[in-house]
Amino acid sequence: MENVFCGVDLGGTTINIGMVSPHGDIVAKRKIPSGVKKGVDYVVDQIDKVLYECNGSEAKEYKTVGLGIGVAGLVDANRGILKEATNFPGWRNVPLAAKLEDKLQLPVTLDNDANVAALGENSFGAGRGHAHMMMVTLGTGVGAGLILDGMIYRGAWGAAGEFGHITIKKDGRLCACGRLGCVEAYVGANGIVQEALENLDNYPGSTLRHYDPEVLMPKDIYNEAVKGDELALTVFKNVGENLGYGLGSVVNLLNLQRFVVGGGVALAGDLLINSAQEKLREVALNNSEEPVRIIKASLGEQSGIVGAASLAMAAI
Amino acid sequence: MENVFCGVDLGGTTINIGMVSPHGDIVAKRKIPSGVKKGVDYVVDQIDKVLYECNGSEAKEYKTVGLGIGVAGLVDANRGILKEATNFPGWRNVPLAAKLEDKLQLPVTLDNDANVAALGENSFGAGRGHAHMMMVTLGTGVGAGLILDGMIYRGAWGAAGEFGHITIKKDGRLCACGRLGCVEAYVGANGIVQEALENLDNYPGSTLRHYDPEVLMPKDIYNEAVKGDELALTVFKNVGENLGYGLGSVVNLLNLQRFVVGGGVALAGDLLINSAQEKLREVALNNSEEPVRIIKASLGEQSGIVGAASLAMAAI
Repeated sequence: MENVFCGVDLGGTTINIGMVSPHGDIVAKRKIPSGVKKGVDYVVDQIDKVLYECNGSEAKEYKTVGLGIGVAGLVDANRGILKEATNFPGWRNVPLAAKLEDKLQLPVTLDNDANVAALGENSFGAGRGHAHMMMVTLGTGVGAGLILDGMIYRGAWGAAGEFGHITIKKDGRLCACGRLGCVEAYVGANGIVQEALENLDNYPGSTLRHYDPEVLMPKDIYNEAVKGDELALTVFKNVGENLGYGLGSVVNLLNLQRFVVGGGVALAGDLLINSAQEKLREVALNNSEEPVRIIKASLGEQSGIVGAASLAMAAI
Repeated sequence: MENVFCGVDLGGTTINIGMVSPHGDIVAKRKIPSGVKKGVDYVVDQIDKVLYECNGSEAKEYKTVGLGIGVAGLVDANRGILKEATNFPGWRNVPLAAKLEDKLQLPVTLDNDANVAALGENSFGAGRGHAHMMMVTLGTGVGAGLILDGMIYRGAWGAAGEFGHITIKKDGRLCACGRLGCVEAYVGANGIVQEALENLDNYPGSTLRHYDPEVLMPKDIYNEAVKGDELALTVFKNVGENLGYGLGSVVNLLNLQRFVVGGGVALAGDLLINSAQEKLREVALNNSEEPVRIIKASLGEQSGIVGAASLAMAAI
């Protein structure tokens, strides 16, 4: 019987659960409503039921030897405690790993979703083979997970990875966090829109002028860029450069080998990444031995499950 | 017989060698000309002679069980190789640790001076008890050594710690490295002087106007600040803020507990550190659990010897 690892991606509305082989292949998966409002014991029961069901069907030929779980929140990974999570009202300092271990009789490892995604890409995705990397998730917010010396790096109390809030321009643009000049203020979804709005007057022929500024989205700007709109192209070039500045600081401090970029905004793909890569080449020191590259995340939708399973693998 | 660890601080002009107890006390020390121009075998012989001499006198009651050595240069710590060092003409890819081991019949550990200083402060100085910290050395350049999860963090090929070249202001002040807006451009010795010169016109009564701008030094500005000169005080306030921005980025990325500041410019002490601390408090996220503090290095002159000895201790 081959071993499999259960990966659980616990969100505010759904739970994605999968059984993953040591090679990263998903042999069974389920998606259920998370029911976090019904409390932690209810959620633990649900996960138990799904495991039981999978073990009786697609995963019949496999032995489940561990479970990893990723949650969007502040986590004490060493003690397996979910300290707080915006989308889980009423959950505070929940010993989630211990509760799951009791119920399932399996070793359980817990971490935040950014770290889980980084480990997944490191184990089976775009970061494979690089012991020093950072995965950046671009969306409304800009988050990150660090892999240093081949392991998740969590910091003193699990708060590492706030790449979105390193400063690239002191006294610069106001960030949603209240500080000035954070990466997120330039590279987050709102930052992208702001970059377009600030430059509208310089591009009188831009199709972006036909959009209602109140509801303009990065996706609109991307669509116009693909059609060749000069302002839209400039926006992604500038946003990419700002991302490159931030990544440059990280690589100079940490001597990483690779950046993996995922999340909604990363769909802008090459437009953004080529510009970021160019700036990074300029900003990175000691970059001759093995120039650091920026690569799109490759696990896609499965990232949560595969990442959480790789967390369980790393714990054994 | 109590154990001692030999710490060697190998510089371009002198070698400082000491025998250090497991509690960080120096039981013997010597200072000799480094003679790096005579080649690596000569230097190894010199270190051997000093060890023999110490073991016959002050260190007679102790048993030397390991040697650590710190060098200002690019080091492959895992393989004990000094890859290159500006002050050591002709030394390239020197297997320094292996050569010392052969001669001394002791386990030898090699690292760069910034990492060695950080580990020393972490083991016996201002960073004691903090598994997540960075030591910053302020001088002409701005260097750093990282301690993560209680160990020196070196990065993919030993180039980590370039704190002086993280960007705090994209398109900002020109740095000696050729990039724009690096920490070093604002916080290094030249950055401090530039801060004064740029503000001279705003302070018509400043005593700094009586100095020749060509030879103005951070020390002069410090002396005037102590006497109450408003411009000089403003310079250290601004430089401190810029340092605080850089440290803020590091703490948000790495969730550190402490910064230790050493080097010549750190003598400006409280003037600089209080201002940096205030800005850091503003910029640091997740800072409520245990607010990160900036502390002056405490090992002083002995830092090289004690740090190198602590490297040998960590290797055992």
